[in-house]
Amino acid sequence: MIEEQTIERLKRHLELENPEALVNDLNSMHSADVAEIFERITPEEREEYFKYLDPEKAADLLEEVIPQIQVELLGTIGEEKAAEIVSKMPYDLMADFLGDLTDEEVNSYLNKLPQRVSSQIRELMTYPEDTAGGIMTTEYFSVSEDMSVEETFKYVRSKSDSNSNIDFYYIYVVDKLNHLLGVLSLRTLISSQLDMKVGNIMETDVFKVHTLDDQEYVADNLIKYGYLALPVVDNYNRLKGIVTWDDAHYISEEETTEEIYASSGISTDVIPEDEILTGKLFLAVRARAPWLLITLVGAFGAVNVADYFDNILAQLPVIAIFIPLLIGLGGNIGTQSVTLMVRGLSTGQITLNVALYQVLRELQVGLLIGLAFGFLVMLVTWGWKNNIALGSVVGVAMAANMTIATLLGAALPFILKRFNIDPAVASGPFIATTIDIVGLAVYFILVSIFFGYLT
Amino acid sequence: MIEEQTIERLKRHLELENPEALVNDLNSMHSADVAEIFERITPEEREEYFKYLDPEKAADLLEEVIPQIQVELLGTIGEEKAAEIVSKMPYDLMADFLGDLTDEEVNSYLNKLPQRVSSQIRELMTYPEDTAGGIMTTEYFSVSEDMSVEETFKYVRSKSDSNSNIDFYYIYVVDKLNHLLGVLSLRTLISSQLDMKVGNIMETDVFKVHTLDDQEYVADNLIKYGYLALPVVDNYNRLKGIVTWDDAHYISEEETTEEIYASSGISTDVIPEDEILTGKLFLAVRARAPWLLITLVGAFGAVNVADYFDNILAQLPVIAIFIPLLIGLGGNIGTQSVTLMVRGLSTGQITLNVALYQVLRELQVGLLIGLAFGFLVMLVTWGWKNNIALGSVVGVAMAANMTIATLLGAALPFILKRFNIDPAVASGPFIATTIDIVGLAVYFILVSIFFGYLT
Repeated sequence: MIEEQTIERLKRHLELENPEALVNDLNSMHSADVAEIFERITPEEREEYFKYLDPEKAADLLEEVIPQIQVELLGTIGEEKAAEIVSKMPYDLMADFLGDLTDEEVNSYLNKLPQRVSSQIRELMTYPEDTAGGIMTTEYFSVSEDMSVEETFKYVRSKSDSNSNIDFYYIYVVDKLNHLLGVLSLRTLISSQLDMKVGNIMETDVFKVHTLDDQEYVADNLIKYGYLALPVVDNYNRLKGIVTWDDAHYISEEETTEEIYASSGISTDVIPEDEILTGKLFLAVRARAPWLLITLVGAFGAVNVADYFDNILAQLPVIAIFIPLLIGLGGNIGTQSVTLMVRGLSTGQITLNVALYQVLRELQVGLLIGLAFGFLVMLVTWGWKNNIALGSVVGVAMAANMTIATLLGAALPFILKRFNIDPAVASGPFIATTIDIVGLAVYFILVSIFFGYLT
Repeated sequence: MIEEQTIERLKRHLELENPEALVNDLNSMHSADVAEIFERITPEEREEYFKYLDPEKAADLLEEVIPQIQVELLGTIGEEKAAEIVSKMPYDLMADFLGDLTDEEVNSYLNKLPQRVSSQIRELMTYPEDTAGGIMTTEYFSVSEDMSVEETFKYVRSKSDSNSNIDFYYIYVVDKLNHLLGVLSLRTLISSQLDMKVGNIMETDVFKVHTLDDQEYVADNLIKYGYLALPVVDNYNRLKGIVTWDDAHYISEEETTEEIYASSGISTDVIPEDEILTGKLFLAVRARAPWLLITLVGAFGAVNVADYFDNILAQLPVIAIFIPLLIGLGGNIGTQSVTLMVRGLSTGQITLNVALYQVLRELQVGLLIGLAFGFLVMLVTWGWKNNIALGSVVGVAMAANMTIATLLGAALPFILKRFNIDPAVASGPFIATTIDIVGLAVYFILVSIFFGYLT
């Protein structure tokens, strides 16, 4: 966390027109810290500070900021300098960045790079964004199986000086046509005799992914198996690139965001997650309206339940005032149950085969809290309206409502999952509506039964 | 993802009493896959399969399963074999595991280990669970600054054979009293001349954490700076251990779970997150009841609003039936706004200085959706009840309610954050209640104003 005084100090340097201090201060910071500062200042200040960064630091910084800020910053500093900075970015990020530009701009950037590099970038740009190919980088070490450990060391040493972006976790073993044969960890390399052949010490049982595999599949497996990188191959098992653990972290964060959005009925199926907060207003509406419409239909179901009992409402209008209470608390405790089950299913803490245990457990929690809250509501209502029958009916409705809500809230995610529907997507809006309808029905039925005592 | 047929195959081996096939099948799988299978089968099956695992594989497996299953498995195989398996676990996990046992059991395990190891484990067990000390491991490489690159290689090679758990990302440089002087990446080591002194090539500007630093602080910084491990020091800058990137991933997942729980009013302040799903029922109730009680108070606020207009309800009972509709949709769209702001603040996509932009944007989204939904509700109500005035009042209330809900839902998280209250914790329940009260008030006021047209 960057302290406010660091930001103040930079501002003072700027006001006092002290470029040397700015250059020193900014370039001695970690790029992640500079990125944090850039997120907290105005676009004008960003533009000013960006000029003082070394090209290396500027390239590092661009890796850390969101795409909008990338484009904004590079747009302000002149084509020549922008090209220099972009040329120092890792290839995967360069491809992502260029992917958002026009063909003409892309060509102007790529023409300034060596042919070998620009053709790799062009290839990276051909893969869909959310596939292994779209997130991989082509910067990795590969050696042939007849090389010795000593030769491998020399090769790695010579290469790693000239390319500071290369990821350094594993060395891949390939044949002349770049088919993936095996993988060597640095650990194996260091612990092996110098005259051993790489082909004899490599791990041949390699977990690899295909260029067109979904990015979530790639990230999930990287995390599950605890690898630092995964090789990406094409249909012919030719090594095309690697996906590294830091990519996996960001993908898994994005996945979680989509799950959280889904839980309140914000759909990221059609609208990309990052467009919802800052993209076109129309897209934000489109992401949010569909589930609200489904809720609207459900809410009319609840309205119909109430309407069905209109003659009770006419004779006993006081019962209407407790509707917000019953719906509110039922909805809240039901949402808690949904949240626990959906998150548990997503992290793997809960699996389908413990469904019954969890549903029964939720039912008990609902019953305990429902009885306590029902009793409380009974006392308050009795005291307030001086009507013990009214208090009892509202209290019993409350207890029943909360218990049913936990039961439905816990069971629904398992039922959806059982039928291969993503529980995160459908649970929230469905459950809110169902609980409203069932809760109201229970309340009005109780009122009907005890109507004689209430009037 | 493990396929069902793999599980079926294992079951067949078990039924046919084919221990050899079981030993082969289970031990050739990755421990993460075995863990996935163990989560999907019964405790009895787990117990059976566990017997067939090599001690190494069993230790790897224990790293991947939840603590309850750890204890369950080790309890079934006899003290001797359990001790052998535990001795192969990484030190940090061993300390976590032993931390849940009785003193007597702990001693029985530790007495079987070399004195050097058991004293390290005992020290690890003294740190609180959620601190850097509680999650660090003491298995790392450290060298002195006057060693050459070549000597370092030799040292690492000799050590890495005998300890397969040691993490291999960085080599730490310490003095004789174990004070942390610097760090060397494997990359630097491999790219350096063999006769260079470690002290001359090490990075001295080391990001380090303190044994008692909060685990979330540690994880956030590990992820922010993209390190594979962070050194942990005591008050005297003595190196005590390291925290690695896979720990950071699990902590950040736990953090997200707590945030998601908080959003529906499930508190993890007093009750540990992992106790809520499977711990004592009483704890689950305690985690969930407090915010529900606050919601209850708020709901009585809404009841009071309705009660205030009781004479309107008495004369025009039909207006009561629309209460679930207004409250439901207002609550839903407001929750969407809260969700977007809270998640954005948590991932850093949104910062306090864009609060105004985001709130205004939400207001526009609310207005657009509110107008559309209000119009729809107006038409439906008009057609259904054949009363254009009633349709209009309900429609306008709907539009106003949804617009106000987005405004409140978007603004509240920023206000809480501004006063240093965690927006994740308070937003959900607060907002639901506030929207209920405001929404009902708007509706009843509209009804009062246009009362003449409605009857």
